[in-house]
Amino acid sequence: MNKLWGKRFQKGPSALAAAFTSGRDVRGTPPADERLIPYDIWGSRAHVVMLARQKIIPRGDARLLIAGLREIGRFSEKGKFKLDPAQEDVHSNVESWLNKKYGPEVSGKLHTARSRNDQVALDMRLYLRECNLEFVSGLSSLIQTLIRLGQKHRETLTPGYTHHQPAQVTTLGHIWVSYASAFSRDVRRFQDWYSRFNENPLGSMTGYGTTFPIDRDLTSRLLGFDRPSESSLDPIQNRWEAEADLGFAVCTMMNHLSSLAQTLILFSTAEFDFLKLDDAHSTGSSMMPQKRNPDPLEVLKAKASVAQGLLVSLLSIGKALFLGYNRDTQWTKYLIMDLVDETRSAAPLLVEILSSVKVHSKQMAERSQKGFIAAPEVVEQIVRAGRISFRQAKGAVERAIRYAEKEGLDRLTLPLLQKASQEEGLRFKVSEAFIRQSQKSDVFISRRAAAGGPSPGALEKNISTFARTLQESKLWLKQKALQQALAQKLLAKMEKTL
Amino acid sequence: MNKLWGKRFQKGPSALAAAFTSGRDVRGTPPADERLIPYDIWGSRAHVVMLARQKIIPRGDARLLIAGLREIGRFSEKGKFKLDPAQEDVHSNVESWLNKKYGPEVSGKLHTARSRNDQVALDMRLYLRECNLEFVSGLSSLIQTLIRLGQKHRETLTPGYTHHQPAQVTTLGHIWVSYASAFSRDVRRFQDWYSRFNENPLGSMTGYGTTFPIDRDLTSRLLGFDRPSESSLDPIQNRWEAEADLGFAVCTMMNHLSSLAQTLILFSTAEFDFLKLDDAHSTGSSMMPQKRNPDPLEVLKAKASVAQGLLVSLLSIGKALFLGYNRDTQWTKYLIMDLVDETRSAAPLLVEILSSVKVHSKQMAERSQKGFIAAPEVVEQIVRAGRISFRQAKGAVERAIRYAEKEGLDRLTLPLLQKASQEEGLRFKVSEAFIRQSQKSDVFISRRAAAGGPSPGALEKNISTFARTLQESKLWLKQKALQQALAQKLLAKMEKTL
Amino acid sequence: MNKLWGKRFQKGPSALAAAFTSGRDVRGTPPADERLIPYDIWGSRAHVVMLARQKIIPRGDARLLIAGLREIGRFSEKGKFKLDPAQEDVHSNVESWLNKKYGPEVSGKLHTARSRNDQVALDMRLYLRECNLEFVSGLSSLIQTLIRLGQKHRETLTPGYTHHQPAQVTTLGHIWVSYASAFSRDVRRFQDWYSRFNENPLGSMTGYGTTFPIDRDLTSRLLGFDRPSESSLDPIQNRWEAEADLGFAVCTMMNHLSSLAQTLILFSTAEFDFLKLDDAHSTGSSMMPQKRNPDPLEVLKAKASVAQGLLVSLLSIGKALFLGYNRDTQWTKYLIMDLVDETRSAAPLLVEILSSVKVHSKQMAERSQKGFIAAPEVVEQIVRAGRISFRQAKGAVERAIRYAEKEGLDRLTLPLLQKASQEEGLRFKVSEAFIRQSQKSDVFISRRAAAGGPSPGALEKNISTFARTLQESKLWLKQKALQQALAQKLLAKMEKTL
Amino acid sequence: MNKLWGKRFQKGPSALAAAFTSGRDVRGTPPADERLIPYDIWGSRAHVVMLARQKIIPRGDARLLIAGLREIGRFSEKGKFKLDPAQEDVHSNVESWLNKKYGPEVSGKLHTARSRNDQVALDMRLYLRECNLEFVSGLSSLIQTLIRLGQKHRETLTPGYTHHQPAQVTTLGHIWVSYASAFSRDVRRFQDWYSRFNENPLGSMTGYGTTFPIDRDLTSRLLGFDRPSESSLDPIQNRWEAEADLGFAVCTMMNHLSSLAQTLILFSTAEFDFLKLDDAHSTGSSMMPQKRNPDPLEVLKAKASVAQGLLVSLLSIGKALFLGYNRDTQWTKYLIMDLVDETRSAAPLLVEILSSVKVHSKQMAERSQKGFIAAPEVVEQIVRAGRISFRQAKGAVERAIRYAEKEGLDRLTLPLLQKASQEEGLRFKVSEAFIRQSQKSDVFISRRAAAGGPSPGALEKNISTFARTLQESKLWLKQKALQQALAQKLLAKMEKTL
Repeated sequence: MNKLWGKRFQKGPSALAAAFTSGRDVRGTPPADERLIPYDIWGSRAHVVMLARQKIIPRGDARLLIAGLREIGRFSEKGKFKLDPAQEDVHSNVESWLNKKYGPEVSGKLHTARSRNDQVALDMRLYLRECNLEFVSGLSSLIQTLIRLGQKHRETLTPGYTHHQPAQVTTLGHIWVSYASAFSRDVRRFQDWYSRFNENPLGSMTGYGTTFPIDRDLTSRLLGFDRPSESSLDPIQNRWEAEADLGFAVCTMMNHLSSLAQTLILFSTAEFDFLKLDDAHSTGSSMMPQKRNPDPLEVLKAKASVAQGLLVSLLSIGKALFLGYNRDTQWTKYLIMDLVDETRSAAPLLVEILSSVKVHSKQMAERSQKGFIAAPEVVEQIVRAGRISFRQAKGAVERAIRYAEKEGLDRLTLPLLQKASQEEGLRFKVSEAFIRQSQKSDVFISRRAAAGGPSPGALEKNISTFARTLQESKLWLKQKALQQALAQKLLAKMEKTL
Repeated sequence: MNKLWGKRFQKGPSALAAAFTSGRDVRGTPPADERLIPYDIWGSRAHVVMLARQKIIPRGDARLLIAGLREIGRFSEKGKFKLDPAQEDVHSNVESWLNKKYGPEVSGKLHTARSRNDQVALDMRLYLRECNLEFVSGLSSLIQTLIRLGQKHRETLTPGYTHHQPAQVTTLGHIWVSYASAFSRDVRRFQDWYSRFNENPLGSMTGYGTTFPIDRDLTSRLLGFDRPSESSLDPIQNRWEAEADLGFAVCTMMNHLSSLAQTLILFSTAEFDFLKLDDAHSTGSSMMPQKRNPDPLEVLKAKASVAQGLLVSLLSIGKALFLGYNRDTQWTKYLIMDLVDETRSAAPLLVEILSSVKVHSKQMAERSQKGFIAAPEVVEQIVRAGRISFRQAKGAVERAIRYAEKEGLDRLTLPLLQKASQEEGLRFKVSEAFIRQSQKSDVFISRRAAAGGPSPGALEKNISTFARTLQESKLWLKQKALQQALAQKLLAKMEKTL
Repeated sequence: MNKLWGKRFQKGPSALAAAFTSGRDVRGTPPADERLIPYDIWGSRAHVVMLARQKIIPRGDARLLIAGLREIGRFSEKGKFKLDPAQEDVHSNVESWLNKKYGPEVSGKLHTARSRNDQVALDMRLYLRECNLEFVSGLSSLIQTLIRLGQKHRETLTPGYTHHQPAQVTTLGHIWVSYASAFSRDVRRFQDWYSRFNENPLGSMTGYGTTFPIDRDLTSRLLGFDRPSESSLDPIQNRWEAEADLGFAVCTMMNHLSSLAQTLILFSTAEFDFLKLDDAHSTGSSMMPQKRNPDPLEVLKAKASVAQGLLVSLLSIGKALFLGYNRDTQWTKYLIMDLVDETRSAAPLLVEILSSVKVHSKQMAERSQKGFIAAPEVVEQIVRAGRISFRQAKGAVERAIRYAEKEGLDRLTLPLLQKASQEEGLRFKVSEAFIRQSQKSDVFISRRAAAGGPSPGALEKNISTFARTLQESKLWLKQKALQQALAQKLLAKMEKTL
Repeated sequence: MNKLWGKRFQKGPSALAAAFTSGRDVRGTPPADERLIPYDIWGSRAHVVMLARQKIIPRGDARLLIAGLREIGRFSEKGKFKLDPAQEDVHSNVESWLNKKYGPEVSGKLHTARSRNDQVALDMRLYLRECNLEFVSGLSSLIQTLIRLGQKHRETLTPGYTHHQPAQVTTLGHIWVSYASAFSRDVRRFQDWYSRFNENPLGSMTGYGTTFPIDRDLTSRLLGFDRPSESSLDPIQNRWEAEADLGFAVCTMMNHLSSLAQTLILFSTAEFDFLKLDDAHSTGSSMMPQKRNPDPLEVLKAKASVAQGLLVSLLSIGKALFLGYNRDTQWTKYLIMDLVDETRSAAPLLVEILSSVKVHSKQMAERSQKGFIAAPEVVEQIVRAGRISFRQAKGAVERAIRYAEKEGLDRLTLPLLQKASQEEGLRFKVSEAFIRQSQKSDVFISRRAAAGGPSPGALEKNISTFARTLQESKLWLKQKALQQALAQKLLAKMEKTL
């Protein structure tokens, strides 16, 4: 711990927490196209194989180009292929490298039947696809953690809140699993993105096609796409949409995460004292020796705001664009990369935090007794017992609570309830025992057994549903990985037979 | 035409155009809950049927409540059930009406095992579901129009643009169909919304369930939902998400529409003169007698901006919400209603405009000859003819164009191309005939035959794909309508057997 | 109290709170142009007077037009001039009314040397100016309340927080006054708006002027403007900017208010229990009899989000507009009106809430003792006493706190501090008395006396500064009201002498 | 020109255009705190001087600290002080450097009576202040350019547009000067920022002050601030506001710039052909040899969208923040830095583009004759000549235009106007000569002489107004530079006398 605030803690922030919260103070961001090198190489290899098979370029030249491209790929993996800022972008850098090695007669053939428009659209599609899978993977781990903790805490009583005020007693397990529900929808949103956008833009050219006899089905297979884009113009014209669509899925995920973060922040205040974050996710102060701050969770909230702004920029760029490619859309590249970089480890971070947070069950249980929090159950039991309508029963209890508060009491008493019901003109019999029994939390929790409710039984059912959809999304991830692996294999095979 | 600017036109704006562009100058917006009355009634009827079948309330009371609810429904259809502003919302209005008719012993039972939290969540879900179907329907008509016009104009030459500059010749049909491609994605996005959110929140109560033995599967069936929401807390906690998700789908659609609008605006300027909007979609000026303004298209662009802002508000409200219901989310109701109202007729309007716009084919064809627009084809033909690489051929043609411009010429000539290629150190033979032939648009368009390209053949293929997906989405619409109709039928049947 | 949840409360929500939180459930919004009627009349009267004085129209016609306009004004004040939806807008409605009364020869002269472009720009400027003054007025009351409460609570101890964790003891007065500081900046922002935009757009026509010899200085004086807009094109081209600029000032104010709201919400949770909102600003539940919810404050947070989204729409509409008027900007009218309507009573509401909130001083004072909150003072006193550096002293105290926590202690002890400092290799002497004395809050608060700090003396200075600027802004408000009153007077006088 | 598309151009993009459009493809962004080093050093030096003068730290230690800080400053200027990513931020890096050189007894005194909260608030304030001045400077050059070109083109006729349709003839000078008007407001907005935020946050500590007897007036003077912040809590609590406020000023400027950009883009299309961008601001295509794309202007539009999104993030972070510092606001640092980086050279770029753009006056003049563009003048002349009302005259001309169009005519004729006026039941005499004369552009332009109009006289007046305010803003810039220089000087002097 060489931090200015570390002596209070037994250990420093986890690697994930440190990276997540440090921001860009002492680290810059790499050139955008650095991330695209592997995708650019993959795309060019597929393109060259197709050009050769369609006899658009000679096989001999194709073999050279493939050899060069693979060499750049190997260099790049070792960090030896650096982008030259004098060249405009990754595409120019690659062609320039090939030009130096093989001369313009050969390197000049790489761009046959291709435009930078469809090339960058391709690179970005491959990049976004990969990010998409990473989000699904992170969310899956988080769902797994939440249902595990949901199971563990299915009987841990805690106040449930509405309007920041205690509403009804529930279980911590019920809360955790409700978040799993939200994150499951996030997973589906990312999957829907995949089914919409795992399309090959290569071959669109500037948007208006080419007279060369290209084979877009072949390149689609070589790149792990489901199909070529239907219209050549559409992916060029709408080079903001896959970005914005992914951005929206991220924003929704970040809203769910930030809600979880806010709940954790309040639950771990000195005042609530329901949870204690691990040292690995707490931060001290440069000036106040006693501090124990939930920085990673605050940063997560900030990043939800950052994501929303980036989505705005993406949508704003995409508004009212005149026909065809417009340079405006280049900026969507940086926007979506920033969006991904800021948020990619948010779900994994929550996995870490939730797994290590200390639960103060006793404190939660105690607070589950206070502030008339079981009044709704008294109402329900009166309704179930008597023949009096819900609205009337509630009116009586409301009035009784007003009186109790006036007397400085913290609970309903028989006399007050009797007085209140009389004044409301109601007739129903209740006893001390009835009132006491109605407010026994283990009893009423077990009765809240309808689908989705907090009873241990209902919760188990929920958990098994989410466990099943979790399995499905893990399978989905495997299938997508397989599709890519097969594409790579086919490409390597075709390269050999050139 | 009693407009201040009408004497120039043979007819006034269409009803749709007038409503779309008039905005809120002389019309206000109705109370939000007015739109919810039918959904609130439907939901309460289903709730009462369930309460009675589960023996939570007596059958006699249930029969009265159902009779009262149906009566309100009939009154409302005739415009006779007006919301009383002294009651907080539609829910209070309905219960108050029943209270007046049947007294608190009966009306007070309606809210048994229900909270306003799940009630409003239900109403909104039903409302949003309906809006969703309307968007799908409007987009389907638009796609149908675009592929019909795509077919009609599959050989209508026009400059294709990039960067607002002529790029390559294409056909008007190719352009129309590319938009159909984008709108097809919009349809899928709305359908994905439906599969995510056609879930029943009723029974969630305040988010923490109830001890009453409610049957959420039954109410789901009675309301045409696919299932109850998994967690009782989740739909209450995330009462911004279905709204934001629909809002994003609308924003994407509006971006596509605004791009089409911008293209139509520029194409119908005096300077482009490619299109002429019908009088029904043109507006005059209060001061300039000669004006012919594309107001509906400008308004559409504004509404794309409006939609984006409303999405921002929805996402902003949903950020970092503490556990459980928070009143903040009530505002999502107005936001999404505004968003829907502003945009619901945008696609139908474009159907009207596209169907009546006059195409100046001759002007488009003429401009398809100018400004070296066929230079890319010359490069492609040189590459295909000779054995010279693409990059080299392009370099030579670039240089030749520079010389041509210097000489004030508007086309490539043989001597200039020869001079340029010599200077570039290239050797390839071309003839005057070759250059001329390369630039014949009917020839090269027919060769741009790869998937998604503008050749008539490729376009036909595209059109048949979109026609097929159009059929699918129409079928989908029918299925959804059927699901709702069956639910209504089942509800009526169960009401009878109470 | 006819609310479904009222029996718990001694009184219902205040009128302001009710209006603020009820939203648009049972109330719609009026037509936008209804708000503009008085401004449109004022503007037309000034225009007619100018036209007559410049001999552009005959005096006789001018007298008739003035008589008609004043009559409309009187009708409108009594709610008898209703906008006819068959007429496009307020401008058409007014001209049409005059046409019916005086025939086209007279009414047709009203629009001489005017376009709807400059007319609506004028109406909006007058409307926005009025809203602006209302915001300044509301903020002034709020500042006054805050400094009054700041004075009252200048010695009320309370924990100050950072990261939602207790940081250092401060006074409630210090907190209130810090908000006054933020709101004072908001006032200046609105005033800057006024100085930028109290300009007369009338006479701009469509943006390109007129050949009529109009006198824009005269209409400026008659309408209470500081000057005519410099360029005729600019106010027409930028008919989003005054709106966005005001919108930004509102957003900033709403952020400050929402921060105050969030603080009040947390301070009045059961867990903090520092404050109790008055019944007039609390809401119950339709289902839970015990609830006491801070709805108005939650709604205020939502409205901060709403305002941000509306600002986005305004800015988005204003992006990349082509030269001259574009219909897109009409929508800025509804956006800014919504923005104003949603937020205009936010500051007055806080005045009400703050004035009636009950402060639990005892609870605050108790919590000001807990959780090592005075540790920073111990560090400062060690530094001040000994000759040891701040960083070293802080390290020792950090370590001592770690040990104290391990032992389950809630405070620093001499042995722990000695042990910690020894381990850190430091030598300084402290005594039990020293430690105790260092943590006496009344002592150290009085020492935090630098400018802006919480010592009563520093706070008094602050308060007198804000009291002074408050006086200035009240004076400013009076001057602006006077400028308008004089303009109205001059107009009436000139009308008489026509 | 080593670009892939360069052979068509006589010269490559200007340095400014290249930097502006290249984005982050091949260049990353530096660590945020790199930009803050000089401000951090300045702030620490002022702090140390104050500490010593207030006898809070010994003079000897202060001398060492000052020597060290100045050394770091010198190293940094030479690029030799690199931030170590193992240290959290610039503050830790600096203290750690001093610690290595002087040991903890000395270096540990630097942070006395200071928190990272007020330190970073200070650094950012100094950084933002500098950026602010840069924007004012860039805008001043742009205004100067526009009024110079306004003067030059005060008689260059061009169509003025509304709704993208020709509206009325104006002059190019009138257009340029209208933009100067908008940019002048931008300047004032930045200046207002300065008057609001040139305040010293140092001494706020964590927000709750300090018991050390610091002198905030002294540090304010040493850092060129107008005063210390009023409340210690306010600048810590609102560490998003100066950022958002500057961000809004930038957004407004970018909207103005993007409108100018859009106008330039359309004016330089093949279809308008009013302008030709210099080669230095045009870009070719990787595939189409003939292209001449206005990339820098498109990028500028994208950056307006980027700025809006970043503003959203800033405002979103600032919403509903609980009392005191929250880590969320750290992200405002990166957001505002990105915002500044993306936009700082936008105004200078437009200076370059406008100064070198080629105006096709002939083409503009020709189009100023077409499409009934002078019809408004005919109406005005009829009104001025006869005694017929404006509305009636306009109706007649509208009708005449309808007839003319039906006959395929491009201009008003006497018979058509007579026919139209008869049908409208109007009686007024016009002659061929009258109609012709009414449409003579040099005549009617010179008559549009009211304030702000396009007549050469009115324009000259405008220009002299803007020239005067331009002088004022240049003077303002000088004063601000002087204030800073004096502060630096005073600091150096006080350092010597330690």
